Amino acid sequence: MAKSMIDGRGVAVAICATFVLLVPGAAMSQQEPCSLAVTGVTIIDGNGGRALRNGAVKIGGERILEIGKTGDLDVRACAEKINGRGKYLTPGFVDTNVHVSMLSRQIDYARYFDRLKEIAIEGAQIHLKYGVTTIRDSYGVLEPLREARDAIKSGEAVGADIVFAGNIVGWGGHFSETFRSRKPESYFEEWVNDQITHGTGHDLGWKSPEELRQAMNDYMDLGVNFVKVGLSDHDHNMPRLTFSLRQLEAIVETVHARGLPVEVHATSPESMMMAMQAGVDLIQHPEVMGVPITDEVLQELDKGETICSLHGNNYTGKAWEMVKSETPEKGDDDEKGKAEKKKKADPYSRDAVLRDWPVPEPTTAARQKELKEKNPFTIRENAEKIVETNCIITTATDNAPGMSPEFSRTPNKWRARQLGLGTIASIEALVELGLTPDQAIVAATKNGAIALRRIDELGTIEAGKQADMVMFDKNPLKDISNIRRVNAVIKKGKIVDREALPDNPVYFGPKN
Amino acid sequence: MAKSMIDGRGVAVAICATFVLLVPGAAMSQQEPCSLAVTGVTIIDGNGGRALRNGAVKIGGERILEIGKTGDLDVRACAEKINGRGKYLTPGFVDTNVHVSMLSRQIDYARYFDRLKEIAIEGAQIHLKYGVTTIRDSYGVLEPLREARDAIKSGEAVGADIVFAGNIVGWGGHFSETFRSRKPESYFEEWVNDQITHGTGHDLGWKSPEELRQAMNDYMDLGVNFVKVGLSDHDHNMPRLTFSLRQLEAIVETVHARGLPVEVHATSPESMMMAMQAGVDLIQHPEVMGVPITDEVLQELDKGETICSLHGNNYTGKAWEMVKSETPEKGDDDEKGKAEKKKKADPYSRDAVLRDWPVPEPTTAARQKELKEKNPFTIRENAEKIVETNCIITTATDNAPGMSPEFSRTPNKWRARQLGLGTIASIEALVELGLTPDQAIVAATKNGAIALRRIDELGTIEAGKQADMVMFDKNPLKDISNIRRVNAVIKKGKIVDREALPDNPVYFGPKN
Amino acid sequence: MAKSMIDGRGVAVAICATFVLLVPGAAMSQQEPCSLAVTGVTIIDGNGGRALRNGAVKIGGERILEIGKTGDLDVRACAEKINGRGKYLTPGFVDTNVHVSMLSRQIDYARYFDRLKEIAIEGAQIHLKYGVTTIRDSYGVLEPLREARDAIKSGEAVGADIVFAGNIVGWGGHFSETFRSRKPESYFEEWVNDQITHGTGHDLGWKSPEELRQAMNDYMDLGVNFVKVGLSDHDHNMPRLTFSLRQLEAIVETVHARGLPVEVHATSPESMMMAMQAGVDLIQHPEVMGVPITDEVLQELDKGETICSLHGNNYTGKAWEMVKSETPEKGDDDEKGKAEKKKKADPYSRDAVLRDWPVPEPTTAARQKELKEKNPFTIRENAEKIVETNCIITTATDNAPGMSPEFSRTPNKWRARQLGLGTIASIEALVELGLTPDQAIVAATKNGAIALRRIDELGTIEAGKQADMVMFDKNPLKDISNIRRVNAVIKKGKIVDREALPDNPVYFGPKN
Amino acid sequence: MAKSMIDGRGVAVAICATFVLLVPGAAMSQQEPCSLAVTGVTIIDGNGGRALRNGAVKIGGERILEIGKTGDLDVRACAEKINGRGKYLTPGFVDTNVHVSMLSRQIDYARYFDRLKEIAIEGAQIHLKYGVTTIRDSYGVLEPLREARDAIKSGEAVGADIVFAGNIVGWGGHFSETFRSRKPESYFEEWVNDQITHGTGHDLGWKSPEELRQAMNDYMDLGVNFVKVGLSDHDHNMPRLTFSLRQLEAIVETVHARGLPVEVHATSPESMMMAMQAGVDLIQHPEVMGVPITDEVLQELDKGETICSLHGNNYTGKAWEMVKSETPEKGDDDEKGKAEKKKKADPYSRDAVLRDWPVPEPTTAARQKELKEKNPFTIRENAEKIVETNCIITTATDNAPGMSPEFSRTPNKWRARQLGLGTIASIEALVELGLTPDQAIVAATKNGAIALRRIDELGTIEAGKQADMVMFDKNPLKDISNIRRVNAVIKKGKIVDREALPDNPVYFGPKN
Repeated sequence: MAKSMIDGRGVAVAICATFVLLVPGAAMSQQEPCSLAVTGVTIIDGNGGRALRNGAVKIGGERILEIGKTGDLDVRACAEKINGRGKYLTPGFVDTNVHVSMLSRQIDYARYFDRLKEIAIEGAQIHLKYGVTTIRDSYGVLEPLREARDAIKSGEAVGADIVFAGNIVGWGGHFSETFRSRKPESYFEEWVNDQITHGTGHDLGWKSPEELRQAMNDYMDLGVNFVKVGLSDHDHNMPRLTFSLRQLEAIVETVHARGLPVEVHATSPESMMMAMQAGVDLIQHPEVMGVPITDEVLQELDKGETICSLHGNNYTGKAWEMVKSETPEKGDDDEKGKAEKKKKADPYSRDAVLRDWPVPEPTTAARQKELKEKNPFTIRENAEKIVETNCIITTATDNAPGMSPEFSRTPNKWRARQLGLGTIASIEALVELGLTPDQAIVAATKNGAIALRRIDELGTIEAGKQADMVMFDKNPLKDISNIRRVNAVIKKGKIVDREALPDNPVYFGPKN
Repeated sequence: MAKSMIDGRGVAVAICATFVLLVPGAAMSQQEPCSLAVTGVTIIDGNGGRALRNGAVKIGGERILEIGKTGDLDVRACAEKINGRGKYLTPGFVDTNVHVSMLSRQIDYARYFDRLKEIAIEGAQIHLKYGVTTIRDSYGVLEPLREARDAIKSGEAVGADIVFAGNIVGWGGHFSETFRSRKPESYFEEWVNDQITHGTGHDLGWKSPEELRQAMNDYMDLGVNFVKVGLSDHDHNMPRLTFSLRQLEAIVETVHARGLPVEVHATSPESMMMAMQAGVDLIQHPEVMGVPITDEVLQELDKGETICSLHGNNYTGKAWEMVKSETPEKGDDDEKGKAEKKKKADPYSRDAVLRDWPVPEPTTAARQKELKEKNPFTIRENAEKIVETNCIITTATDNAPGMSPEFSRTPNKWRARQLGLGTIASIEALVELGLTPDQAIVAATKNGAIALRRIDELGTIEAGKQADMVMFDKNPLKDISNIRRVNAVIKKGKIVDREALPDNPVYFGPKN
Repeated sequence: MAKSMIDGRGVAVAICATFVLLVPGAAMSQQEPCSLAVTGVTIIDGNGGRALRNGAVKIGGERILEIGKTGDLDVRACAEKINGRGKYLTPGFVDTNVHVSMLSRQIDYARYFDRLKEIAIEGAQIHLKYGVTTIRDSYGVLEPLREARDAIKSGEAVGADIVFAGNIVGWGGHFSETFRSRKPESYFEEWVNDQITHGTGHDLGWKSPEELRQAMNDYMDLGVNFVKVGLSDHDHNMPRLTFSLRQLEAIVETVHARGLPVEVHATSPESMMMAMQAGVDLIQHPEVMGVPITDEVLQELDKGETICSLHGNNYTGKAWEMVKSETPEKGDDDEKGKAEKKKKADPYSRDAVLRDWPVPEPTTAARQKELKEKNPFTIRENAEKIVETNCIITTATDNAPGMSPEFSRTPNKWRARQLGLGTIASIEALVELGLTPDQAIVAATKNGAIALRRIDELGTIEAGKQADMVMFDKNPLKDISNIRRVNAVIKKGKIVDREALPDNPVYFGPKN
Repeated sequence: MAKSMIDGRGVAVAICATFVLLVPGAAMSQQEPCSLAVTGVTIIDGNGGRALRNGAVKIGGERILEIGKTGDLDVRACAEKINGRGKYLTPGFVDTNVHVSMLSRQIDYARYFDRLKEIAIEGAQIHLKYGVTTIRDSYGVLEPLREARDAIKSGEAVGADIVFAGNIVGWGGHFSETFRSRKPESYFEEWVNDQITHGTGHDLGWKSPEELRQAMNDYMDLGVNFVKVGLSDHDHNMPRLTFSLRQLEAIVETVHARGLPVEVHATSPESMMMAMQAGVDLIQHPEVMGVPITDEVLQELDKGETICSLHGNNYTGKAWEMVKSETPEKGDDDEKGKAEKKKKADPYSRDAVLRDWPVPEPTTAARQKELKEKNPFTIRENAEKIVETNCIITTATDNAPGMSPEFSRTPNKWRARQLGLGTIASIEALVELGLTPDQAIVAATKNGAIALRRIDELGTIEAGKQADMVMFDKNPLKDISNIRRVNAVIKKGKIVDREALPDNPVYFGPKN
């Protein structure tokens, strides 16, 4: 990964951060009395580099007032104090790709469609338990997501902050060709699609650049925080495109004109090239595609002007063991298989009761199938190449509620995409892919905030920033899996009652 | 069938055979000069019991003239002589259940529908190579089967004799709900169905007994040799019935009134009971059903009034090894599976990244699925019980051409049902199921002839009978697999040029 | 229909009714004070024959105390009085075939599976609004039906009395091959099936008569009021059978031994013959089958020993107009179609741009398709023949909630099976099929009670019977459609507040 | 249509044509003796403008020697003479979009896959009968097409000249997602796909521009005459893209570098804009897309630099009547439908037996469905707009063999795409869409030759050009449908024996 991760767009960011520190931060520190202090703790501030041993943090209201060596800070007036001796403090984690309102089948939506706001909050709370203080919801049902976001933002509900995109622009909804290779099969499926797309489905492909600008402005009026474009097929083994370059450029310009970031689902080398040419901010799971990533794309990523949100929880750790156990060994199965099949049976031997047929030449479809079976290896190799570039790495889990447990024999077909825990796995994944624990934490905190365009407010432990922090029992810089040993979560300056979450279990919880 | 047909599976038969020996046999032996003699051979005559060492057989035209010790017979005038020293002679084999005109998919029929007569003859020839001198085709396309039968009967073509049923009465054709759980999907499929059913499809279920008599007479006018009734579903995991008892009785009476035998596909205990109550002659694969065979059925079979055509090639030998390798172990997988699933993961352990769900109670469908997976074991156990009864055992392979090799990646999904060789495997199977080699040969020869209602003409090596015989290099009574070591096949008194077969390869042969 | 509908089993019924009148009826009349009287009303008592003009009915508690001419009865002490002048009073209607817990698709069950008891009560209430005081639920989800029945019986809830069967024995549940020609597609579908079948699904076909007795006793232990056997396929265009005669006999005997009635779904002539031979009490929609009903079956029905529950709402009145508008005209379309197709186009004419192909001979499948298209005509003709026999006619609507309105573009694919109103239509249907209004009312009241085996308690306006009655504004004997002009419904002696129903609308109601 | 159709590329063309006239034409006329003359005929030379009455054409070998007034030309030495009095002579027609090797279903290919060369020749012959002397096959099975082309070119077989593309680059074969919205379902389907794609299927989308150049060169090495790119989905109601602009540009440059023309299937406004920007020569059926054509596209087409191959046979004449009879009337059905549905039924009226549901708001999918139903009208309106521009119009029928008659109840689901006759209909279509007969003939002759890049050799009746001509009994300039009254076809200077064609009927002919 980039040593100088903020090179490129980093300059503006740095100025912005400085501005915050000097002005509103300073202003606030005069006004806000100290509500909470953590002392004696090792501070890993999210900027990379050395940790601050025996550090202290003073918090006033929702924000960090001051940071320093424990002895240097006067915490006597602080309303509450935490003894952090032997503990480790990092910024709260940011997951840049979750889907907390996305269920799975018709029956799941039929059962729960009027409870999606509650389910989204439930998801935000489960994330918060694991130290994930902000989730970036990049696909889901717009209205309940907006309501859940606003409820958490206003303090009406507890939970990780939600930042959301609604539909993936250019795609047709969860029950359309995009996701199911078939049209919606019922009125209800059509209705659910519309709750998601709000006019930004497949039909956008018909539109001229000028019409697209209008459509995107109408869509952003619904209150989304960012825009995601489905530039290629959802099926990452199919390289089709949804938009032409000039269509994409029109979308990107229109979203940027509103001050919002724009990202893409782009799962082919060509679509990634188009995305970068059009100036998108972030590429979701750039490692995910049907073929090895190309040098041309890697060179473009290496410019460090794009954010790469890696999907590592899906192909590292336990998930990787499962993938491997289900995938034919690379390379040698062909030899073995062919040898076995070619063995010419003696027509009078006992073996010959089972016919021995000649093996036909593999078809293109057979080769594609083989490529697809090997795809998890390709994806992981792509990820290993991407972390070598200067692309700004964040985590992107696809955490989602998925199938409702009561309607399923084995609900978790999503595997490593469990709410909260999937995020933890995706941070560990970065170390498995080649980053240092230090870099992995920067990716999960500071870079997440860059992806949110909120690096001035979030993502590092710095005076003036929002007090979103996690404290661990063991040192994650020594072993990244220590991020599983959460001791406490602080959200907007308050200690989260983790045991109480989720406080209104609808989809999971007691039933589970 | 006759209560006395076997008594001993032999008394009435013996009388019958004696009659043949005295009358047409004796008459012929005066007329026909000796065309062929085999001397010095060990004769296993098909009646069970001891083999005749150093035996000799004199043949005149299509029939056997005389049998005896080599020294006792005068073979000097015989036109041709075979030295059988060290060799073993049995009657030709009878396979009571093949489908030589039955292909597989639409594309196979589309390619070959006007060549089914040739394919049927090709199948009869491949069987003949392996010593199978008569095949009983219990399902297929009527007209080409009739033409193939007549061509072989008249000597126009070489091959095992074909005896055929055409449709399975009450079933809807190869592309109907019967076989595919769906209606025909094209005009062509409908057309193929009609080539098979000739008015005896599903609709028969609507008819009254009187109407059924008419329908069966119309059908038999088309020249079939016997009638097969689809009394239960083709899917042997579904116990539905096609006909009521009184409907079945009407069919059986009508067929018997023409002097033809009638058999059933009956794959549930209840349908087998109905079949025996209605007086059917033969039950195809009585071991094949979704559940263990019941004592009530076994007791009924034990009366020895019915023929049991066993399907052993499908679940013995190499085929059995394959079945076992694909089937979960009996009994222990549940324990294992549940244990593994119940293991409650530590929510902060690495394992927990993959959700651990409670295991729901198994549904009826899940239990049925499990039962279905275990079905091959059930079938084999049923067969082992059936061979313990007095039921008259024959072999029934379901040998069929199946998928055309040029249209298939792996054509033989039929596995052990290879033409000819499947029959061999089904005879070996009987030994694996508990018979002696001696009994297995009786099943494959004499009992086959009983099933054909031609025990007066075929099935044993006796004077006056048709000279259908196989000679082996090694002793099949010592090791039944020696029936693979065919030395020569004699069909209607003539030595078959096995190397020359099939003489017009259409479906297999050079392409294979 | 039979003029002497109670001939045959009628004698016993008459004795039974008399017994009730003399003993508990008389006993009660001494104890119960008069709670309600209707005077000056024309009484159509449900026994057929002339109406009693200017009649009066005295009710005490749940039962009828006395009936007579208005002047002859002393109603002064009655707590409440209704002036029935110009009005017409009949017994409450009995619908012998509804499905008030049966929804439609997975999504409907997923949304509402824990509210089926409420939905069943809602259905019972909607029926009651239309004067249907007892519904016989012949297929549905057992536990909620039992709870709904008990709640209404105990007075905890208002509604038509429910009498229920639970599963249709031998069928596999609403998401099985029985109803969908496919296996259940999800764990949830499997689970719903089990909520319906409770061990009486397809697998019963495997069982011996002795095992069936056990299975039926286990099932009846769950508290059902009667048993329905799925003797033939649900698809009435397929004549397959579920049970053999001896299996059916074992079931019938076992159910009768408990004093419960047993009925069949039997949609082929042969299955109807079996049903009557086995002594079933009632045949649901005996007119419904893929072929014309046979004389043999009609003769058997004419013995008057069976109840025929006709499905007339589906093929009379408005429904019939719809059927006709969707069905090709009988007879003439073939001529027309063929003529048009045979017209040989001039190859150089403008018409010829569209190819003119020869018409192939119709296949069996094409003839079956045609037969199926004509099936509504066949069914109606069958019904017209059945009402000419002595079979005891009742109505059988298949009324069911069906698809939930919020999940459907056009929820009512069930057409004339609307709760309550479907029953009205099915009574009108009987007149359209050939009965007099008088006979139609007997079918809907007295015969319904015979079907319930409660003719001693219900079904006619007679002293000692339960006071279930409907009052109309106009004379239904003049025009049967006057049964739509309900003035009041009396259930167990109390006037129903029809405007208040359904009092807890879950599935319909305000949303509708 | 453009008055100055050759503006733009017309200049070079004119020079080229002149060159031919002066040099090889003149040269040949000295060498070749006159083999055939037509005299007294009205010549419609394909250049538009006035016809030449009482004209004469002298032919030597395969080429036209001289044209003039009948009296001005000396035809005495001509080997054969045709009296053309009262007849009308035009250049042979060119169909720019046929598929003579394209069958329909698996069974059709299974039956005929080794006879596709014969079928292609049969198709070329049927076209020739109708005066279509060159067919441009824009999709099919490469090898048999190449063989058929070469056989006709060499004179080994009679038929319209074939010019072919093989696969549509970027699409996956006839049994892939491209055409069937599903993957190939069998090994055979995979194999057929490979016979079509030859490495130019879906996978091209993965490739970089450089890799695409290589792939296209490899493909062109197989001997195709031109290249067709599947730039958008085959489903013209879906605006997805197969390639990016830079990918398309790489393909176009590579094909042009070989001197071959390149065309696109582009069925969205955006893909048409891309095609024109990349410099493709021809757009197939530019009127076919899911939405109205946009002004931006029309302006681009109006530059006259592109060829527009219209598909008019599919939506004019008889075909249009069929379309209209199957399509809901534009505009008014909604009003009607809603009114009918909104009508609130009286709950006690007879109508009410059928439930009356509220009409839900139309979903996006419902609106798309409506748009799709109206699509034939949109397409026709698009065509009417396109003929108003300067785009160079040709005809493009999609004529194809389609389903084999013996496997089909109604083989011609392709409707107006009958071999040969479809071409005639597509020429008539142009007049129905707004061209004069004169312009329609230019489109079908001269413009066809421009599309072939062979305007120097073909497409008009001019000295030096190949002698491909049709003679009609009536004047097509008066009534375009007179092109159905073919009197004679001259192909490469020889009179075609139309009655003898097809001379080896494989797919059609006697069976039909």
